[in-house]
Amino acid sequence: MTGAPVGTQDFSPAFRDELTRLMRWRRDVRHFRDAPVDEALLTRCLDAFRLAPSVGLSEPWRILRLDSASARQAARDNFETANARALTGYQGEKAALYPRLKLSGMDRAPVQLAVFCDETTEQGSGLGAASMPEMRRYSVVSAISMFWLAARAEGLGVGWVSVLDPDQLMRDLAVPAGWSLVAYLCVGWPETLRDTPELQEIGWERRAPELHIEGR
Amino acid sequence: MTGAPVGTQDFSPAFRDELTRLMRWRRDVRHFRDAPVDEALLTRCLDAFRLAPSVGLSEPWRILRLDSASARQAARDNFETANARALTGYQGEKAALYPRLKLSGMDRAPVQLAVFCDETTEQGSGLGAASMPEMRRYSVVSAISMFWLAARAEGLGVGWVSVLDPDQLMRDLAVPAGWSLVAYLCVGWPETLRDTPELQEIGWERRAPELHIEGR
Repeated sequence: MTGAPVGTQDFSPAFRDELTRLMRWRRDVRHFRDAPVDEALLTRCLDAFRLAPSVGLSEPWRILRLDSASARQAARDNFETANARALTGYQGEKAALYPRLKLSGMDRAPVQLAVFCDETTEQGSGLGAASMPEMRRYSVVSAISMFWLAARAEGLGVGWVSVLDPDQLMRDLAVPAGWSLVAYLCVGWPETLRDTPELQEIGWERRAPELHIEGR
Repeated sequence: MTGAPVGTQDFSPAFRDELTRLMRWRRDVRHFRDAPVDEALLTRCLDAFRLAPSVGLSEPWRILRLDSASARQAARDNFETANARALTGYQGEKAALYPRLKLSGMDRAPVQLAVFCDETTEQGSGLGAASMPEMRRYSVVSAISMFWLAARAEGLGVGWVSVLDPDQLMRDLAVPAGWSLVAYLCVGWPETLRDTPELQEIGWERRAPELHIEGR
């Protein structure tokens, strides 16, 4: 490729094809098998957080792992309430379809993680976040994206639950002051593998035909 | 691996090693060479947006490509002003170090993209965003993360500039109502390849020794 730097850190066309295949088969998973996830494997996937970009190298991600019955029940109740409320926002065809969607794998996922942003971290000394403080939360999202790919490369499925009341969840989990909820992640072995979003398969929505790019 | 589903969509240990290497060598790049970026190559990298997860399959990402001298100058002026303002927030050692950091590749990057979230999109019918509307912006961040990896796999560098006044930039670029700025990306061929964050090399900050995980 013209202009490409010559170096030892090049990647092969075969790797790029596999990377595309990984992105294509990385799905939001809500249907999990009961099989447990090996701890060493989970740790290896979570290591991807530590390779993620973060504003000012602030690494503001904080993870709570929900293993107790009480913490999991609180999260599940939270979802059920938010999901019932969301349903009231739909009419007609969408109102009929919504209850048939499975929007959370919290019933079976063996590993459940609540991922937060520490808005008050001193790491990074605020670099890059003065004019856009939301960059800290965006850094956490980037790290989750890395983890998602690493998990899928191991065959694990990840589902991101957003039908939740964040404030309620943070109270229930006694989250330290200054943290904000970014994601609730369900992790486990998927029941099925897909390359098409479940929401598309079930007829809720389909991908746009093309990427929206305008010039300026 | 115990519990791993048997299927044709498995990935090899060799691929996983390469994926880790990709994440390790994906850096925030601020030093670019003048060499242009082939359009077909850029398009291929941008295709990664279309494989990204998005809440409710809403695909809320919108991209403006800044090619005109006036648009680029407005963005660069915006950065210079925000950067000068950010400097006033530091004292002592950090105040001495800050001016030596190069926080933007806007001076030379051949491709410059402003990436927005369409907060008003009807695609996805609001699914998953009722209780956490920020999920739309997080979806845009996920897509940028996919693009970043795809670009690096081709040898391209990406730099995310956040030292900006988003409202000013949106006015200058005549951004449609309902869009919000998520990222300003500089894209091009990097001057050097690194596996260590530039902020660490220059002594601004270093990575935390371990990932923060607590139980609940």
